[in-house]
Amino acid sequence: MPRAAVMTGPGAPIEVRELPAPEIEPGGILLETIYSEVCGTDVHLRHGRLAGVPYPIVPGHVSVGWVVETGGRVEDPDGRPIAVGDVVTFHDVHETCQRCWFCRVAGAPNRCPHRKVYGITYGVRDGLLGGWSEAIYLKPGVGVIPLPDGVDARRLIAGGCGLATAIHAVDRAEIRIGDLVAVQGCGPVGLSAAPLALLSGAGLVIVIGGPAGRLEVARSMGADTTVPLDGTSAEERVARVRDLTAGRGTDVTIEATGSPAAIGEGLRMTRDAGRYVVAGQYTDAGETTIHPHEMINRKHLDVRGVWGAGYDHFVRMTGVLARHGDRIGWERTIGREYGLDEMNEALADVEAGRIVKAVVAPNG
Amino acid sequence: MPRAAVMTGPGAPIEVRELPAPEIEPGGILLETIYSEVCGTDVHLRHGRLAGVPYPIVPGHVSVGWVVETGGRVEDPDGRPIAVGDVVTFHDVHETCQRCWFCRVAGAPNRCPHRKVYGITYGVRDGLLGGWSEAIYLKPGVGVIPLPDGVDARRLIAGGCGLATAIHAVDRAEIRIGDLVAVQGCGPVGLSAAPLALLSGAGLVIVIGGPAGRLEVARSMGADTTVPLDGTSAEERVARVRDLTAGRGTDVTIEATGSPAAIGEGLRMTRDAGRYVVAGQYTDAGETTIHPHEMINRKHLDVRGVWGAGYDHFVRMTGVLARHGDRIGWERTIGREYGLDEMNEALADVEAGRIVKAVVAPNG
Amino acid sequence: MPRAAVMTGPGAPIEVRELPAPEIEPGGILLETIYSEVCGTDVHLRHGRLAGVPYPIVPGHVSVGWVVETGGRVEDPDGRPIAVGDVVTFHDVHETCQRCWFCRVAGAPNRCPHRKVYGITYGVRDGLLGGWSEAIYLKPGVGVIPLPDGVDARRLIAGGCGLATAIHAVDRAEIRIGDLVAVQGCGPVGLSAAPLALLSGAGLVIVIGGPAGRLEVARSMGADTTVPLDGTSAEERVARVRDLTAGRGTDVTIEATGSPAAIGEGLRMTRDAGRYVVAGQYTDAGETTIHPHEMINRKHLDVRGVWGAGYDHFVRMTGVLARHGDRIGWERTIGREYGLDEMNEALADVEAGRIVKAVVAPNG
Amino acid sequence: MPRAAVMTGPGAPIEVRELPAPEIEPGGILLETIYSEVCGTDVHLRHGRLAGVPYPIVPGHVSVGWVVETGGRVEDPDGRPIAVGDVVTFHDVHETCQRCWFCRVAGAPNRCPHRKVYGITYGVRDGLLGGWSEAIYLKPGVGVIPLPDGVDARRLIAGGCGLATAIHAVDRAEIRIGDLVAVQGCGPVGLSAAPLALLSGAGLVIVIGGPAGRLEVARSMGADTTVPLDGTSAEERVARVRDLTAGRGTDVTIEATGSPAAIGEGLRMTRDAGRYVVAGQYTDAGETTIHPHEMINRKHLDVRGVWGAGYDHFVRMTGVLARHGDRIGWERTIGREYGLDEMNEALADVEAGRIVKAVVAPNG
Repeated sequence: MPRAAVMTGPGAPIEVRELPAPEIEPGGILLETIYSEVCGTDVHLRHGRLAGVPYPIVPGHVSVGWVVETGGRVEDPDGRPIAVGDVVTFHDVHETCQRCWFCRVAGAPNRCPHRKVYGITYGVRDGLLGGWSEAIYLKPGVGVIPLPDGVDARRLIAGGCGLATAIHAVDRAEIRIGDLVAVQGCGPVGLSAAPLALLSGAGLVIVIGGPAGRLEVARSMGADTTVPLDGTSAEERVARVRDLTAGRGTDVTIEATGSPAAIGEGLRMTRDAGRYVVAGQYTDAGETTIHPHEMINRKHLDVRGVWGAGYDHFVRMTGVLARHGDRIGWERTIGREYGLDEMNEALADVEAGRIVKAVVAPNG
Repeated sequence: MPRAAVMTGPGAPIEVRELPAPEIEPGGILLETIYSEVCGTDVHLRHGRLAGVPYPIVPGHVSVGWVVETGGRVEDPDGRPIAVGDVVTFHDVHETCQRCWFCRVAGAPNRCPHRKVYGITYGVRDGLLGGWSEAIYLKPGVGVIPLPDGVDARRLIAGGCGLATAIHAVDRAEIRIGDLVAVQGCGPVGLSAAPLALLSGAGLVIVIGGPAGRLEVARSMGADTTVPLDGTSAEERVARVRDLTAGRGTDVTIEATGSPAAIGEGLRMTRDAGRYVVAGQYTDAGETTIHPHEMINRKHLDVRGVWGAGYDHFVRMTGVLARHGDRIGWERTIGREYGLDEMNEALADVEAGRIVKAVVAPNG
Repeated sequence: MPRAAVMTGPGAPIEVRELPAPEIEPGGILLETIYSEVCGTDVHLRHGRLAGVPYPIVPGHVSVGWVVETGGRVEDPDGRPIAVGDVVTFHDVHETCQRCWFCRVAGAPNRCPHRKVYGITYGVRDGLLGGWSEAIYLKPGVGVIPLPDGVDARRLIAGGCGLATAIHAVDRAEIRIGDLVAVQGCGPVGLSAAPLALLSGAGLVIVIGGPAGRLEVARSMGADTTVPLDGTSAEERVARVRDLTAGRGTDVTIEATGSPAAIGEGLRMTRDAGRYVVAGQYTDAGETTIHPHEMINRKHLDVRGVWGAGYDHFVRMTGVLARHGDRIGWERTIGREYGLDEMNEALADVEAGRIVKAVVAPNG
Repeated sequence: MPRAAVMTGPGAPIEVRELPAPEIEPGGILLETIYSEVCGTDVHLRHGRLAGVPYPIVPGHVSVGWVVETGGRVEDPDGRPIAVGDVVTFHDVHETCQRCWFCRVAGAPNRCPHRKVYGITYGVRDGLLGGWSEAIYLKPGVGVIPLPDGVDARRLIAGGCGLATAIHAVDRAEIRIGDLVAVQGCGPVGLSAAPLALLSGAGLVIVIGGPAGRLEVARSMGADTTVPLDGTSAEERVARVRDLTAGRGTDVTIEATGSPAAIGEGLRMTRDAGRYVVAGQYTDAGETTIHPHEMINRKHLDVRGVWGAGYDHFVRMTGVLARHGDRIGWERTIGREYGLDEMNEALADVEAGRIVKAVVAPNG
């Protein structure tokens, strides 16, 4: 019986429990977990800030593991069979139904009402469906992706949920060669969005955030310049960005902060007829004030929300890590590895901002 | 010396004055005004709510007139010469420089800092450059458009600024065949956006606004159903729109209200992964509160600002009026014609919402 | 045992056979067929011009019928249950796998290598999976769509495959208000594309094709003008289209002919920087010559292929028929109804161009 | 009186002549030429393969020089004044009228019928308007661009016309992170398109062309792999590209060959639902055969023509050279510098493919 770190309910401490081993259905896969991660979302889960979470749950939505057993032939996206011993990651979103209006008419499976997410909306009652566990069961139809040459398990988890989400955000930003880009926030999404903007042809990337140590990581991953939150007002940060962009503001700003107050600031630092991508408001952190005449209408702006990451973003993440991983060095964002018995500490460290990325190593 | 209605400054009453006749430069055109209009913007100009207005000015940005004289050969967009006696309208925006970064690098001439607008940012000192006047001088380079067969001067001014702006808004909305559309507001922009949405293939058009008389006009111009502002809460209006759209909300919502509070309501009535076009926040009416997690990020929404109308929108406006004018009947929006001596009354009528469209007939 | 018209192989005459009644799986549906149709594709199937067809087959990919039995609860796209007695149509494409690279990474399920099409790539060995039959079995997962108010079975089949394909083609054309549009071809796709272009805001629609009777149908369905193939050269047709479009050519041309030679002609009649949509080359009719400098590069043209029709196009087809069916009158395209014993005659009539749309009425 | 190399007519040898010094109008600029280049187009001009060329002309459309004199204040795109002594380049296209239908309604100034191009459609009679000359006169309104820090005159001309055109082609390609890209051709456009595809996020770039020396340059500038034209059939090249792309073909192919026969080959090597950009058919090299069913319709392909390069592409070219010039090394493409007296030899060297880029140094 595999051991797993279980979040029993909002506010309760994480407990390590033994959970029943799953029965492998045809098309299913059993993984021995190599790494999972602590995402900012997990902190929110701990505080009960998401609706519809079926506590008790095993958190950990992006993970990597060894294939221990498969239920017959299971294929990767290129149609090649998955074999025992392969190191794989998988798309955390499952059961987008392909039958509902969002899946089939709107072409927006990320808004399918039937979708389930490993480690978030699957609970202990649904099976071994979270990454903070010695083993993970991939149900039939889960999008499994073998790691390509040049990507080991540690590099994959260093990218993790933040990198997949950032690929989605950068897709929405439609960056063209030479665009001047600001990224608000330097958590895992912001730190990935900055080098991805450069990979997409940006002529300048400014990262706005803090604390100072994270800004240093941002620069080491390719950001041209950084603007600290500490000791600056929103007014000053907007002025600083305008100074760096011929007085006009950025062509593209990507929001990855989690703070509603960032929205008005980001809209103001974007140039007229530019694009503003909202990726960081993943959980409910309340309301904010905007000035629609100045910030949207007169600016002739495009504002684009980004919800989650699709299977294609996960597949492309492995390609980005293979091609650019050595140069960009996502591993810099890893603060520490935690065992299953240390998950309360891991959550506390992430919440306090003491580390960017907490990696979970359930099998030691 | 032509007579013109002059707005001398914020808050001051309109005065009728004689202004010097212009000298016609090569490429310039002198018009005898047939009609101009009172736009909502003119009410804002009266109260000094726009920055950079060079009072005293002659208001009236969209107008139609007879060609009295041309400075040599002047051509329409198809390269045909403009002749004395032609009935023409013209693009109110001028002097987009084609040299600055917005014009030439960003491809956003509507945000050119050098642009000037007839009746708004041209003043009496600049010449005879507003429509509330017996004559209008079109400077060289102004985009002049002869009225096509089937469009007389009254029909053109019935469309007016609101129709050109609505074409721009509907372009930004990218409506596909069968889309469910809501239009917030039933002033000139909203009343034009509703039939244009249908012309673009909408499967349903809901107009939200008031008073009741305007909603009746909206239905007569093609809106499938209307939702009154009077006696309903924002919550109830959102619920009503959801009821009409299989519970999901609209594919597209076009905001044309002028009220910041409409933004949050409109975002909520739009379906996940839909489009929200902000066209009505043309002047500074202050701030509003939004909930970025619920309204933008989780919805995976596109929000698109719309600033002004381009020459192409004016050209296409004349085509729309020629093809669909009989059926849609923009003339329904005209409340009354005013002479130059009645412009204070006209402004008061528009501000009080007593009429949708006040037409100005400077030559009687 | 239901009777069905079976195409036993290329060149062989159609035979009526009794086929075994299907066993209804959970999620499956049994239909009593009201109508199916003879599509141009069926003529090609008869001649063996498609690869990978598992003869013997029951042709008929778009059909409409009564629900006789369901395998438990089956839902429409809005999540409402399908009931016995409902009149429904269904998406002919099935088994897009949602697991392969095209489905999940490229977002192009219309190019999924696992897709199967009712009446084309499903054969008699696969079950009762074609419309020229007294009964049709909808396998679990087939996209079923109840007919909305205002659409009876005859109207649905009058639209049929051609209308769904035309919606896809018009989506790809991105028609804006006022665009000048040419449609090459006046078979079922072209005759539907013409009114759809108008519904999408076109300022002018020209249909090019023949014979004269079909052009008359095109005009009755809304085409502004028609250009006959008979008695004109390609050069003359291009010149005629340019005359109708201020000498520039069309903003958008939609090809729906099935003839490779139409490609060069269509590219030439489209204006510089316009869009050319290739929808009519559904089967292999060979090669053609183009001039890439004059037709694509110097024109700065967009050329867009269109393959098939998706579930969303079928859903939206029912909406178009409900809203615009009375006015546009797709029923005009129906030439005659054929019983199962008359399918050889039906194929001959369609191949000879004697009728536009041959409707199949298997039960009477 | 400045000396210039004059092409007197098709087929005639280049002659060096003294031409009258221009009078500097307000807004005009006189340059002392540092470098111009020999573009493939100049070879075509020599053979009379372009229509509407007003021989005698001074060739050389992309050039760089010192500002010797300005006609009053002239500004760069950011609004800063151009000063005597500045090293500048300029957009070769001039007199896009901003009044015609293409400029103002279609938003396609690259198809403006009034546009003139330095060194191509301006002749000796129009003034000192070509780069193979000791001095160049920039007429008022020409888009002048100072070289930014990090870009000297040699680097700018190493990029030259090919780089600006390649930026336009890559814009049209809409490359996303991870896309697999093929570039057909390794002249100046192809050699620039390859590294630009990588800068835009491509996961793989394959260059197809020859001779071997150029493919080596392509690899040194970042191409992952190359496929030689020499000794391979079209069939083999398509197979090779498919092998490199999981059997599917490329997401994006950019054609930059000048050879009509490349079109069919390129369409076949592009995956279903991919994008094919046609940039290399700048002059009339005749017709080719395509198979519309297999290559466009069934593939659901997007084919996009690219005509010329805009002012924005020139501005962005200077930014690309500043940021990435050291790493990519466009200077590798320069074969040799030629004086004005050596232009017949320069044309012969380019035509024979002996060098990629021939640089012209009129002042020594």
